[in-house]
Amino acid sequence: MNTELQMHNDIYCTFYLSPPPEMSEIKATVVYPATEKHIQKYLRQEVHLIRESWEDYKNITLPFIQSQSFSIQWVYNILQKKAEADRIVHENPDPSNGFVLVPDLKWNQNQLEDLYLIALVHRRDIKSLRDLTAEHLPLLRNILQEGKEAIVKRFGVPSSQLRIYLHYQPSYQHLHVHFTALGYDAPGSSVERAHLLADVIDNLAMDSLYYQKRALTFPLRADEPLFKKFQEAGKV
Amino acid sequence: MNTELQMHNDIYCTFYLSPPPEMSEIKATVVYPATEKHIQKYLRQEVHLIRESWEDYKNITLPFIQSQSFSIQWVYNILQKKAEADRIVHENPDPSNGFVLVPDLKWNQNQLEDLYLIALVHRRDIKSLRDLTAEHLPLLRNILQEGKEAIVKRFGVPSSQLRIYLHYQPSYQHLHVHFTALGYDAPGSSVERAHLLADVIDNLAMDSLYYQKRALTFPLRADEPLFKKFQEAGKV
Repeated sequence: MNTELQMHNDIYCTFYLSPPPEMSEIKATVVYPATEKHIQKYLRQEVHLIRESWEDYKNITLPFIQSQSFSIQWVYNILQKKAEADRIVHENPDPSNGFVLVPDLKWNQNQLEDLYLIALVHRRDIKSLRDLTAEHLPLLRNILQEGKEAIVKRFGVPSSQLRIYLHYQPSYQHLHVHFTALGYDAPGSSVERAHLLADVIDNLAMDSLYYQKRALTFPLRADEPLFKKFQEAGKV
Repeated sequence: MNTELQMHNDIYCTFYLSPPPEMSEIKATVVYPATEKHIQKYLRQEVHLIRESWEDYKNITLPFIQSQSFSIQWVYNILQKKAEADRIVHENPDPSNGFVLVPDLKWNQNQLEDLYLIALVHRRDIKSLRDLTAEHLPLLRNILQEGKEAIVKRFGVPSSQLRIYLHYQPSYQHLHVHFTALGYDAPGSSVERAHLLADVIDNLAMDSLYYQKRALTFPLRADEPLFKKFQEAGKV
């Protein structure tokens, strides 16, 4: 490999290295001829923040969610042990306050740097943060406590190195909680999408109707149908 | 450049490209001989989450902050126009409810992808989120409203594409607010460190003492002195 000294000062040196071609291979995908749809797909999509009041949720978001027929059969398959049964890290089988903890599909479990697990609740009547009240505190506390314990036991990662949070909007409307390694810059862990489970618990303990009163912020791509609904309502 | 077809299917092709050495230069820094301190600096530091109750703040964090003599002269220089006066994007000169908006030093202002501005408040008696009460709502609303307006006017970025937030812990104890491009994965924009200004305003409007009651989560590196204080108190 070609090396060129650029700077030398006391114990510090800077070099420019030129690795041989076989060590700097690039993978390129070519689409030819490309349609307008291909071009759109690879263009960076504009993302906007929505500040959703409770009224916006009732009048815009909830009707939109109910109009969608988005299958979450894969979630029920896990909960019923019809799929991924061998992957379950922990289960609390209680139908109201229980959940299943499984590795997220994005995590290959080969290294702890990008540790990613998901807790899926057994009950099927909680779509998102918006449905939570103080009634759900025992469930949420079980997830926080048992999830931490199961992860330190199985993977040796202490709870002070776990980011434990919910998404709003979630990508599927069945309550679930994300457990990611603190050092991993997991997609969707930014402040505009993530809500720490510890904060959610404290908010509900303070006011059972916290999430039925408060405005919530979330990002939407400009080509998403829900974004158009907010636009039509003059809310963007 | 050497190109090798790897896959061809309909309109899709994958190639491996091997760029010539001069197009794949790598910059390397060598420290030789390196001391133990050098090695520590480049080792990945462990980070832990602290869940700080209001009592922890009063008994551990606040005494620690007060024991530090961390100069924020650079902030006062900006506020008094002794430095960076030509960089000011917007100012509200009111001594209680005013602020100065400047580009963050991390942003070179050449492109909008990593837009980053900071609002520094004129008053000097607010260290962080922990000091905020409903008394500060006019100040916070000015920052939110005027900051958005100034950024769309000067840079053409609409407010729906801005992430506007405070850090807790902040890196310096003089209240400031971050404005970053939504598409930019800015360091410190994760849920464990960032608090949306819109949420802070709503929390204070609901309960003036919100931030004097609530537990707050924040990350600390294991080698930080404040981490040792929490450790000594048996809180980690």
